[in-house]
Amino acid sequence: MIEPRVLKGFRDFLPAQETARRLLVEKIEASFRSFGFVPIDTPALEYAEILLGKGGGETERQIYRFTDHGGRDVALRFDLTVPFARFVAERRGELTFPFKRYHIAKVWRGENTQKGRYREFTQCDFDIVGSDCAAADFEILLMMKKTLEAVGAGEITIRINHRGLFNRFLEKTGVNGKQAEVLRQVDKLSKIGEDGVRAALAELLDDEKARRILEFSGCGNGRSFEETLAVLSGAAGPGPDTERLQSIRRFMNDAGCAESFVLDPSITRGLDYYTGVVYETFLNKLPGIGSVCSGGRYDNLTGLYSKETIPGVGSSIGLDRLQAALEELGAVSEAEGAAAAIICRDGEEAGRLQALAESFRSEGVSCDVFLEPKKTGQQFALAEKKRIAWAIIPGEDGLTLRNIATRENREGLSADQAAAAIKAAKEGRT
Amino acid sequence: MIEPRVLKGFRDFLPAQETARRLLVEKIEASFRSFGFVPIDTPALEYAEILLGKGGGETERQIYRFTDHGGRDVALRFDLTVPFARFVAERRGELTFPFKRYHIAKVWRGENTQKGRYREFTQCDFDIVGSDCAAADFEILLMMKKTLEAVGAGEITIRINHRGLFNRFLEKTGVNGKQAEVLRQVDKLSKIGEDGVRAALAELLDDEKARRILEFSGCGNGRSFEETLAVLSGAAGPGPDTERLQSIRRFMNDAGCAESFVLDPSITRGLDYYTGVVYETFLNKLPGIGSVCSGGRYDNLTGLYSKETIPGVGSSIGLDRLQAALEELGAVSEAEGAAAAIICRDGEEAGRLQALAESFRSEGVSCDVFLEPKKTGQQFALAEKKRIAWAIIPGEDGLTLRNIATRENREGLSADQAAAAIKAAKEGRT
Repeated sequence: MIEPRVLKGFRDFLPAQETARRLLVEKIEASFRSFGFVPIDTPALEYAEILLGKGGGETERQIYRFTDHGGRDVALRFDLTVPFARFVAERRGELTFPFKRYHIAKVWRGENTQKGRYREFTQCDFDIVGSDCAAADFEILLMMKKTLEAVGAGEITIRINHRGLFNRFLEKTGVNGKQAEVLRQVDKLSKIGEDGVRAALAELLDDEKARRILEFSGCGNGRSFEETLAVLSGAAGPGPDTERLQSIRRFMNDAGCAESFVLDPSITRGLDYYTGVVYETFLNKLPGIGSVCSGGRYDNLTGLYSKETIPGVGSSIGLDRLQAALEELGAVSEAEGAAAAIICRDGEEAGRLQALAESFRSEGVSCDVFLEPKKTGQQFALAEKKRIAWAIIPGEDGLTLRNIATRENREGLSADQAAAAIKAAKEGRT
Repeated sequence: MIEPRVLKGFRDFLPAQETARRLLVEKIEASFRSFGFVPIDTPALEYAEILLGKGGGETERQIYRFTDHGGRDVALRFDLTVPFARFVAERRGELTFPFKRYHIAKVWRGENTQKGRYREFTQCDFDIVGSDCAAADFEILLMMKKTLEAVGAGEITIRINHRGLFNRFLEKTGVNGKQAEVLRQVDKLSKIGEDGVRAALAELLDDEKARRILEFSGCGNGRSFEETLAVLSGAAGPGPDTERLQSIRRFMNDAGCAESFVLDPSITRGLDYYTGVVYETFLNKLPGIGSVCSGGRYDNLTGLYSKETIPGVGSSIGLDRLQAALEELGAVSEAEGAAAAIICRDGEEAGRLQALAESFRSEGVSCDVFLEPKKTGQQFALAEKKRIAWAIIPGEDGLTLRNIATRENREGLSADQAAAAIKAAKEGRT
């Protein structure tokens, strides 16, 4: 006998949790579609050279890579951005820019599972490519806010920064050639704190530069977006990055949504390919879980595959982290089975019970026809276990409609009457 | 520069096709849920020993298998039934039987792509486990019919057989020990025809047995379900299998859905684990594409992982084949972008345009805010290319609503009026 078990870092989703996930994805997708974004899909498996690009580092260590039946070096995608870059380069002739696309799908990484991380998880990406305007940056930020609102995440804070701004400040401060390393240290602020970062920067550069860099990174604390922008413009001098942030802020004010956004110069987004605005999203009630939606602007999506320079801006929701957060906040409704169960009193009735069920289903009332003629008490208990709110018992004088929770029966109903009662109760509840 | 390309047998889905797929899945899922079925999900990657079970044959040749970072022998799932068996055995304590579940997800097989097959494709499985009653067999068959109806597949024929019936007939005919090989030959009927199968069976057994087996397999031709059942009962003698078929037929008549089902003793479903009813589904207008939905009853789902005997019955829709068939039948509606595009006359307007868009989105009218202030003619052309039906041009005296197809403008509208006009037109169309 083979022991049934899943690989570590991988998991099954039981019906209650899978139903909740699908409902969450439905809401996220509806939000994306309301902005006119369209979906694509790409293969789970690609040529390793395409996914690894310039390769190296953590990606190469974590990617699921192997040789296929035909001797090809292949790997499972570890994000949705690299496949998107390959897709845009390959299908360029079939796309019109600006191209607004979303992609909700699984990705795989051989993460260290002791940190509570999964090796198979779902990302919800949305990007605008082929446009470098501020209106595109703003649309992505607005979608982040609207989408998290739509799923009931509560009060959120979207922390924005600009890669160009930090780089210009470092140049002005006389930090040359070590920008990547400086960024790497600043990225650790939330993990090792100011003192740890100051020490590392002092060793890398000197005490004075370390102090000034930390002052720059922390100048958003206790200040409004506008005040912070003024301080940063002073420290780095005005430039295209401060102008971009100003435009975005003006759009926020014009759209009446300014309050969820802060300017936070300590947001660096690691050492990714971002070249403009970058952002992370925190749930005010659960700041410790990290960002539930992150992204930024990049100046060339397809550089590895095409000579054409294609700028873009996008963001990605980590569905698993978001779902866990919503569960902790109690913002996930209890998943239910069908609206009604049809009780079985005789194994020979199956055809008639399905015909009865059809008159409910055609009215939009889902029906679970119970298959086995067990004692009615047992069947009511089964309905309760499956989180079905109503039971329908056919009889000579019409149907009996039973409220599983209250145990109240209404007798002598027609199918129409029973369906109407079930729908009215559902509307009352919602 | 790396050449952007996908692996053979794998493909991207462009927005129009992906939108159509998602709509199709939505309809399939709605049908499953109307019967009270609940969704689960399982990992794409599992221990190879679990997926291969007793192993051998085509599965082992086609499975995507490799060694992971931790030296484990792993593989990508090649169907959704084996993961389901492992899931049921592993989560037995958390499930109540009968358990009605569906699972719509990708699977991977290293198929021969010259036959036009994909190596990554989507299956839509639905099973009832923990019940061996005829009502369960019937519910699955009814769901097959209702679901294909819901997606607009048109007239279909579901061909039913019973594995037990064929095996009893073979015994009665004196075929002992070679049943698997006989089944394998009969399975080739649609590919190599009667003469080819007769020759193979004559060589395996003798001319007389070959003739009788073909007569049995073909006895459904030109006969009604009832007549065919009578002939089979005569040939094999009555038994639990003929009784089961009779019950199912009675349910079909009681439910008023008998006409789509035929009894076809040539349906064998290969050499799978089926032990009871088996079935395949053909689109009357496209018989050549093969079955779009197949399955059957099995008497022990979890035998490899658990001592408990768990019977079940289920079916699986091949989404890719179904979508291709619907496209050929012209039963797929043209995918669209947002309902309306908001024209951009000034790059500084982005905030105000998004605020305007919000008043449409909150009314359920999706809005694509155009980001770049190009000539209006170009923007109308872009809207047409993105299959957006309406353009909204803000002005001093209210909004202008333009019908992209007819080029008619309505001027001086409020946002409410424009939204109402767009919704009315959509309802008129649908």
